[in-house]
Amino acid sequence: MDEALLKEIVIPGTSKIVLLVMDGLGGLPHSGTGRTELETAHIPHLDALARDGICGLSVPVAPGVTPGSGPGHLALFGYDPIAHNIGRGVLEAVGIDFDLEPSDVAARGNFCTVDANGIITDRRAGRVATATSVELCKQLAQIELPGVQTFVEPVREHRFVLVLRGEGLSDRLTGTDPNREGLPPLPVQPTATEALESADLVNRWIAAARERLAGRETANMVLVRGFAKQPMMPSMRELYKLRAAAIAIYPMYRGLAKLVGMTPLPGGASFEDEIEKMKEHWDEFDFFFIHYKPTDTAGEDGDFQRKVEALEAIDKLIPRITALKPDVLMVGGDHSTPAIMAAHSWHPVPFMLIATLCRPDRADTFNERACELGSLGTFPARQALAHAMAHAGRFTKYGA
Amino acid sequence: MDEALLKEIVIPGTSKIVLLVMDGLGGLPHSGTGRTELETAHIPHLDALARDGICGLSVPVAPGVTPGSGPGHLALFGYDPIAHNIGRGVLEAVGIDFDLEPSDVAARGNFCTVDANGIITDRRAGRVATATSVELCKQLAQIELPGVQTFVEPVREHRFVLVLRGEGLSDRLTGTDPNREGLPPLPVQPTATEALESADLVNRWIAAARERLAGRETANMVLVRGFAKQPMMPSMRELYKLRAAAIAIYPMYRGLAKLVGMTPLPGGASFEDEIEKMKEHWDEFDFFFIHYKPTDTAGEDGDFQRKVEALEAIDKLIPRITALKPDVLMVGGDHSTPAIMAAHSWHPVPFMLIATLCRPDRADTFNERACELGSLGTFPARQALAHAMAHAGRFTKYGA
Repeated sequence: MDEALLKEIVIPGTSKIVLLVMDGLGGLPHSGTGRTELETAHIPHLDALARDGICGLSVPVAPGVTPGSGPGHLALFGYDPIAHNIGRGVLEAVGIDFDLEPSDVAARGNFCTVDANGIITDRRAGRVATATSVELCKQLAQIELPGVQTFVEPVREHRFVLVLRGEGLSDRLTGTDPNREGLPPLPVQPTATEALESADLVNRWIAAARERLAGRETANMVLVRGFAKQPMMPSMRELYKLRAAAIAIYPMYRGLAKLVGMTPLPGGASFEDEIEKMKEHWDEFDFFFIHYKPTDTAGEDGDFQRKVEALEAIDKLIPRITALKPDVLMVGGDHSTPAIMAAHSWHPVPFMLIATLCRPDRADTFNERACELGSLGTFPARQALAHAMAHAGRFTKYGA
Repeated sequence: MDEALLKEIVIPGTSKIVLLVMDGLGGLPHSGTGRTELETAHIPHLDALARDGICGLSVPVAPGVTPGSGPGHLALFGYDPIAHNIGRGVLEAVGIDFDLEPSDVAARGNFCTVDANGIITDRRAGRVATATSVELCKQLAQIELPGVQTFVEPVREHRFVLVLRGEGLSDRLTGTDPNREGLPPLPVQPTATEALESADLVNRWIAAARERLAGRETANMVLVRGFAKQPMMPSMRELYKLRAAAIAIYPMYRGLAKLVGMTPLPGGASFEDEIEKMKEHWDEFDFFFIHYKPTDTAGEDGDFQRKVEALEAIDKLIPRITALKPDVLMVGGDHSTPAIMAAHSWHPVPFMLIATLCRPDRADTFNERACELGSLGTFPARQALAHAMAHAGRFTKYGA
């Protein structure tokens, strides 16, 4: 939303806004029944909310564009996901709860295997065991660079995060992965003159890494890519005067929320735990982002029935959220993950907002077809927060 | 669509996209029946496609704006028709298949009649016969300008195209038509300092033309306007990695397509020929723009019944297109031409997209009222291609 406009109309308040994100919420019809996951699931509580609220289909990034988790969430947080592109290195770092500083440069790394001539024979080093990877990262963490602190943090299997911390570092760097076997790793190159020194530093680090790994048969080299700094984003507090909390089991979603200034609250082991966490901290915050993952996992696995069950499972817990009596409850998704595609997709995502001053609309169940009838229509996801702010009484009149 | 975004998400592929443009497709209700041309026509094949696909109403340029053929097509090709304005001179040149070079300056010209004092008595020289015009153009083509090559190509009746080819020419020039009789032609004036020399050259050419035509009673002077260079547009290949072909009977539509890098394939004498041409070249391209003119011609003539028949005629040929099994088929129009207006109009245009991963919507026939119920809603025409790219599997995920 236009920052100058926000400055004029945002007012502080004590109302509570809850944003429930069901990851990968949207779906497509099952070929046998012609019904989507949401249309198949028995979800009386969500349907009742749709009757009370206003509905629509949210477009996370742009028509036809399939979003990753980063852009999908940023949009629901009220940010333009194209203007604020989150680099892969940053996402990988926040995904392991690494506490990035604003000037850090992060990259996604992985161990690979090269032959005696330095030619890549396996880009993923046979998906080396995480335990081995942890050990190798410890060795690489000992590499020293002049004037720069380095962190090498294992992720899972062959993947790790490389973070450079120091003055004047630039992320305008190309990656080293040639994207296929049979070629040597590429040197890191600067894409802007400001990055000349950073490129040199990373290349020295890679050379040192190669030396330290040289004795090994496999996982004897590294590939790094996705160099990125945190995007510079004004916080939700600055823009919306909201004290915002993020409750999620997976660190990546808390990390994404941290990028916009939310306070992360680890979510425990289940969605029930997440709700309990929200209840516990109810008085400390006025915006809660609460994340539900099973819908996406089932969709990505292509398991239609399990996605239906994930929807039915969360439906049973909805009364625990409404019992907290948020002034505004938003229910949506960061993107669609239709089980029949077993992947994220570009299809608009069912969305609803429930508050006392909702003007009734024609959507009276919560699914793709019904939300299309809703008064929000098919709308950019980054507009959702403005609707919530309005219904929460946190926007004053614009102009006299 | 945002070019930086496209760079990140466009991937090459082997899928096939067909864009069928029925010129002037949209209509308005007949006063007797209350039904539009599409609602009156018996079009079972188009209706069946609407049931399978997603529908909407496309807005070619902006709400309320009546587009010419240029902007109407550019939008369907995925370009912002306001940012990429095609000058009248260029449109006239591509309309006669003139092969413009990027630095050429083209203008629309016409013969007019002036009296002994140089006052215009007939701006169109009595719509002089095309044969005479061809002869006069030959004479004017002999005019020589220093350092500049000139082309004078007849169009039809009093109209011709003037093209200047040389170094450093500018199109920032005013026209000479005072827009009414009783005044002398205006001198060409530069609207930017860079165009000083070009203005001088064109004024010398006009003086020479006047001399050569001076012996004549009518058609003894020229008017020129709409000076323009080709707009600088990235090609569909650059933006979308599409090998695109344009199939149309009329050169103007092929010419428009050439401006965005499509390969023009002359369409023969009928729409059947056009489909045959597409079939013939099916393996060479992955995007086909195929143009159908009779809907617009009938609309412009104010012939409701003939427009209905033009729709019924193309409906019978739809199976020949679907038999080619395109991965994505788009059916739309460059603008509305309601027969009751006998002119282009601003009304949004019925549009549908058919592909395997379409999420079903409520539009189950193909006409103005039904398309309004479609899940694409009323949308900017320039977004159509993004939907096609998504459904053709040619966009990868944005962001991690």
